[in-house]
Amino acid sequence: MLGRLNHVAIAVRDLQQAAAIYVAAGADVSAPEPLPAHGVTTVFVTLPNTKIELLAPLGEASPIARFLERNPDGGIHHLCFEVDDIIAARDTLAAQGARVLGDGEPRTGAHGKPVLFFHPKDFSGTLIEIEEA
Amino acid sequence: MLGRLNHVAIAVRDLQQAAAIYVAAGADVSAPEPLPAHGVTTVFVTLPNTKIELLAPLGEASPIARFLERNPDGGIHHLCFEVDDIIAARDTLAAQGARVLGDGEPRTGAHGKPVLFFHPKDFSGTLIEIEEA
Repeated sequence: MLGRLNHVAIAVRDLQQAAAIYVAAGADVSAPEPLPAHGVTTVFVTLPNTKIELLAPLGEASPIARFLERNPDGGIHHLCFEVDDIIAARDTLAAQGARVLGDGEPRTGAHGKPVLFFHPKDFSGTLIEIEEA
Repeated sequence: MLGRLNHVAIAVRDLQQAAAIYVAAGADVSAPEPLPAHGVTTVFVTLPNTKIELLAPLGEASPIARFLERNPDGGIHHLCFEVDDIIAARDTLAAQGARVLGDGEPRTGAHGKPVLFFHPKDFSGTLIEIEEA
């Protein structure tokens, strides 16, 4: 059921500063992409097997604003796993006690695919996103 | 220079409890492996493209004990990237201002390969390990 690690999301204050070390490391680093509907601007660091997504707050009600207040240097915000069937995956994880955030229904994520988030306390302190691949 | 994401390391108090959700999710989850020389016991969650390493403290002076005091639910401890040449990678990242932890010389990591760690402040609040693949 649990597929590829689609990305590691790292919340940052300053995308250019955060991206610089990955550029220096020779990684494939995208231009910033504003996603106003999601309250973030993203930069993708494409590795041979997965991606790092650097997220900076965009707009007044960014979902990562509070995280950056608590973590002023930035930090890993969530992991995203691919699943074949998001409803089946949700129900399997919920049956194990993992709490789905929000109203429990998938919404359209930053990649235009259905996503759900699970409570960090149910994954060893790690916010988990699942995305229907 | 920057190669595959070798693993995401998540520090946990209780390996069995932390692993249960990954077992339920149908992932390939290893038996616990004590690594006394590194002060941790590890469980590997093998995904199609990378690994999650669950780390629990082992012994009196575990390097993750303090992290777990600050993060009682557990949490992501570090990311490990593969590099072809650890000395060249160290020097490139250091030239960009990334601070190498310890004495700056590679030591043998949990996989028996040369590793180095970089200061989280120089990677957007994320502790970074590089491992010579």
